[in-house]
Amino acid sequence: MNIGIVGLGLIGGSLALDLRALGHQIWGVSRQERTCQLAIERGVVDHASVNLKLLAKADVVFICTPIAAIAPTVQQLIPYLSRETILTDVGSVKQAVVEEVAPLWSNFVGGHPMSGTADSGIEAAQSNLFAGNPYVLTPVETTPSTAVKIVEEIVRSLTAQVYLCCPEEHDRAVAWISHLPVMVSANLIDACMSETEPAVLKLAQQLSSSGFRDTSRVGGGNPELGVMMARYNREALLRSLTTYRHNLDQLIKVVESQDWQVLDNKLQQTQLHRPEFFC
Amino acid sequence: MNIGIVGLGLIGGSLALDLRALGHQIWGVSRQERTCQLAIERGVVDHASVNLKLLAKADVVFICTPIAAIAPTVQQLIPYLSRETILTDVGSVKQAVVEEVAPLWSNFVGGHPMSGTADSGIEAAQSNLFAGNPYVLTPVETTPSTAVKIVEEIVRSLTAQVYLCCPEEHDRAVAWISHLPVMVSANLIDACMSETEPAVLKLAQQLSSSGFRDTSRVGGGNPELGVMMARYNREALLRSLTTYRHNLDQLIKVVESQDWQVLDNKLQQTQLHRPEFFC
Repeated sequence: MNIGIVGLGLIGGSLALDLRALGHQIWGVSRQERTCQLAIERGVVDHASVNLKLLAKADVVFICTPIAAIAPTVQQLIPYLSRETILTDVGSVKQAVVEEVAPLWSNFVGGHPMSGTADSGIEAAQSNLFAGNPYVLTPVETTPSTAVKIVEEIVRSLTAQVYLCCPEEHDRAVAWISHLPVMVSANLIDACMSETEPAVLKLAQQLSSSGFRDTSRVGGGNPELGVMMARYNREALLRSLTTYRHNLDQLIKVVESQDWQVLDNKLQQTQLHRPEFFC
Repeated sequence: MNIGIVGLGLIGGSLALDLRALGHQIWGVSRQERTCQLAIERGVVDHASVNLKLLAKADVVFICTPIAAIAPTVQQLIPYLSRETILTDVGSVKQAVVEEVAPLWSNFVGGHPMSGTADSGIEAAQSNLFAGNPYVLTPVETTPSTAVKIVEEIVRSLTAQVYLCCPEEHDRAVAWISHLPVMVSANLIDACMSETEPAVLKLAQQLSSSGFRDTSRVGGGNPELGVMMARYNREALLRSLTTYRHNLDQLIKVVESQDWQVLDNKLQQTQLHRPEFFC
């Protein structure tokens, strides 16, 4: 198959490596001439260009740009495509993307590979990045079933675990397990830094260990990603944040009223249910 | 020196191992006859008994019982002690303990070794558990300086990092870096479980990975420990929880009003300040 990839970063580059190894012809487009050169030199792609025109022959195109650039990229790409070309993206939110792109190109299947590393860019691209990890596809009513089938087959060939759901379900699910944790964790650091007694703050910094380290990790991460989550998944994130605040209010009341049996029950429940997230 | 240890669990047993290796005579007391036998068999202590009378000759006694048992143990121990005997404890909260015990025995120095493993009991006791880790001592105005000096010397001989502060400062600091994270993390699991659409909850459980794993870890831990933190460090925990809620309210408002520059600044700050907790 002729597979196009727009955006040769960690995800685009890693997709290219795996799909090329499976025997597909890979046509890569990057805004940077240097990235195109690197992609060819390292054998990540068969052909590379800064011009979207390169993708005229592609059967399937993966849009691997940042979220804000997905719809504009599709618009610029359309003049070069044949009607049968299937488009898919790798954005970490789906409703906002699908709502913008589906009206532009009916043969579009929203996608979200849930794989990553701390690194980014073509240099970070690696084989088997998707193996065993979830890869969500979010077709809507208007998505042709053949397009879904073809993207699904490609994703399965990466040995990823495929999940199909609607964009809204995807966004609500990732709000819980990815975007809410970032906000909860960032707010922990922010609250600690609000300590008004310098001696207490200093001591807290000296005494902190693995518990604080783990709970604060994602809140101390890349600010751009955090803003992106809130910006493009605002509705679902606010839904999760509102529930979180409601439950926090209840928790505070329980501690205030010294209702230790209720607190014990709550913590028994959280201990019981956490493993259900890691089956 | 003759060193007594009441409570031969993970902390008491590990203290015994290290102090015995340093040449002290170790006198251990446990409520369980079986634990006394094990402690002797494994060379953890020199002498062991279920009777506190065993500690009549001790120069220093470490009370390594659960928090609720510290003051009652001191009361039962007093009839057997000479006036010069120094008492210290290993409880993870200090104000409640010191307020109860200091009036009973002036030669008392509150302590908190910040070391541990996921295991408990005499079987989990290990050498060098305290090496390189913080060990907080919380003398008050009435604590004799010689008592502080002797406990401090023993703790330094374990190659722990000694911090001295008042009980209130200790409790406020651990509320930030230990007790608040447990509540924030437990509330994350609790909020996720509040999801009313079964399909979304199921999907969230299938898609969760390292971010959720780390942020939810301490909230899925031992419920007894969580209740103990809230119960004995209630005032400082509520102080931290209230600040956390205030900052969360601000965060929600920022997302609601789509003030992305403010959110970016906030996340820049949390990224910048997190490393100050791991110097």
